[in-house]
Amino acid sequence: MKTVERIGVSLDKKLLFGFDKLIAKQGYQSRSEAIRDLIRRQLSSERLRNPKAKVVAAVFLVYDHHSTKLMEKLTGLQHSHLLQTISSVHIHLDGHNCLEVIVLRGRVGEINKMAENIISLKGVKLGRINFVATESA
Amino acid sequence: MKTVERIGVSLDKKLLFGFDKLIAKQGYQSRSEAIRDLIRRQLSSERLRNPKAKVVAAVFLVYDHHSTKLMEKLTGLQHSHLLQTISSVHIHLDGHNCLEVIVLRGRVGEINKMAENIISLKGVKLGRINFVATESA
Amino acid sequence: MKTVERIGVSLDKKLLFGFDKLIAKQGYQSRSEAIRDLIRRQLSSERLRNPKAKVVAAVFLVYDHHSTKLMEKLTGLQHSHLLQTISSVHIHLDGHNCLEVIVLRGRVGEINKMAENIISLKGVKLGRINFVATESA
Amino acid sequence: MKTVERIGVSLDKKLLFGFDKLIAKQGYQSRSEAIRDLIRRQLSSERLRNPKAKVVAAVFLVYDHHSTKLMEKLTGLQHSHLLQTISSVHIHLDGHNCLEVIVLRGRVGEINKMAENIISLKGVKLGRINFVATESA
Repeated sequence: MKTVERIGVSLDKKLLFGFDKLIAKQGYQSRSEAIRDLIRRQLSSERLRNPKAKVVAAVFLVYDHHSTKLMEKLTGLQHSHLLQTISSVHIHLDGHNCLEVIVLRGRVGEINKMAENIISLKGVKLGRINFVATESA
Repeated sequence: MKTVERIGVSLDKKLLFGFDKLIAKQGYQSRSEAIRDLIRRQLSSERLRNPKAKVVAAVFLVYDHHSTKLMEKLTGLQHSHLLQTISSVHIHLDGHNCLEVIVLRGRVGEINKMAENIISLKGVKLGRINFVATESA
Repeated sequence: MKTVERIGVSLDKKLLFGFDKLIAKQGYQSRSEAIRDLIRRQLSSERLRNPKAKVVAAVFLVYDHHSTKLMEKLTGLQHSHLLQTISSVHIHLDGHNCLEVIVLRGRVGEINKMAENIISLKGVKLGRINFVATESA
Repeated sequence: MKTVERIGVSLDKKLLFGFDKLIAKQGYQSRSEAIRDLIRRQLSSERLRNPKAKVVAAVFLVYDHHSTKLMEKLTGLQHSHLLQTISSVHIHLDGHNCLEVIVLRGRVGEINKMAENIISLKGVKLGRINFVATESA
């Protein structure tokens, strides 16, 4: 069964020239690969607008490990029944600060809520989330 | 002289199906038009990373017109010699607040600096900038 | 009736030093003004996550005015009954391209939908939206 | 030596009321903690605008591990002499797709360039970067 299709795209020479220059700089081997990436990224950001979308997320935290009880709370949140923690990495940045990357499965809305709770804990200095819409991966 | 080219793009059926569904929802008439938009947006955001890029920008401000001397300062900044104000629109939101949209030409770095100066003025409540890289438009 | 309150904020000397340096560069006259701006921006982005929030928006479009019927469609969309166009500015960028800034009132969800429809029109090259949550302004 | 300072901030009652409501929802225990977070985030995003800033970054990739030679290339890039990989985690999402989170130290500009090279590899489906400006952490 054929799973790859070939479509035609018309575009202005000037636009094509700019695109070719950019993707060469970025290191792409072909236009198709670069266009597939643009499409994937758009589909992914579209899906993530739905709070019910099932995703894998990496939560990225910087915190002071001297903060009282922060680590217990972090561990507690990771064991919440709505989320499934897949993995977590802990890195010592300096005498005070740790970086922790927590990879988990769940729904966009629930993960956002949990991340807000974590980021608001005393001792957590920075927090970010990256999502991957798993159905689309 | 032919200015339009047609290129071929290979992509997975599943990816194509997701893309077709999304662009139908967004109202596109053709895949080519949707892909051209993705490419234009990427080229534009790439160009805007260069602080020397020549652009047209729309600065979007909400401010309290009762703030002492704010309006004189705004006018002064618009007449800076590094920038060329093309147009400005003033809208009364309510008894206190005005929205002003200032369209100007200049370089990314200079416009960002001016916008920081405006946004930091007492009485300015919100500020945003949108850029168009004119060479790419 | 007093409408201004004074609150106390404790923070690390190093953090305060970094903040003072940044806001001096940005041109703020006082820490209070800089902190008020941080708070306003956060409240505003929070409110805009609700698709029903009432807002004023500026839609920023670059398009080719030679595109068949684009201008009629744009005008039609502006007269949609769900939105109330307050003002629009039209600027000639070069022989082909126009910039149009349309300021309108409506709800976040409806404006996003309309903007998607506009941006997907053939001939529209770039589109952005800025929102102001009016209750918060 | 005292390292914590207390500053006063004046703000409108209505603004304070909105802020208190938001931070209660987010789970903050005190206004000071919420304001410190706003300040830290702003300082951090300011520092990251400098391509020479020293940072810790987490690169987040989804890729197809069947892609020829992708894994060797990824490993090669991680051993580049400009960057210092601290850690990497590999997670099997499904039969085809892997998620890899690579934590590394380096300068913003170099990490961005490396990330562009990785994301453009055939088989890499999604890529994101999170930065922490280490001096600010």
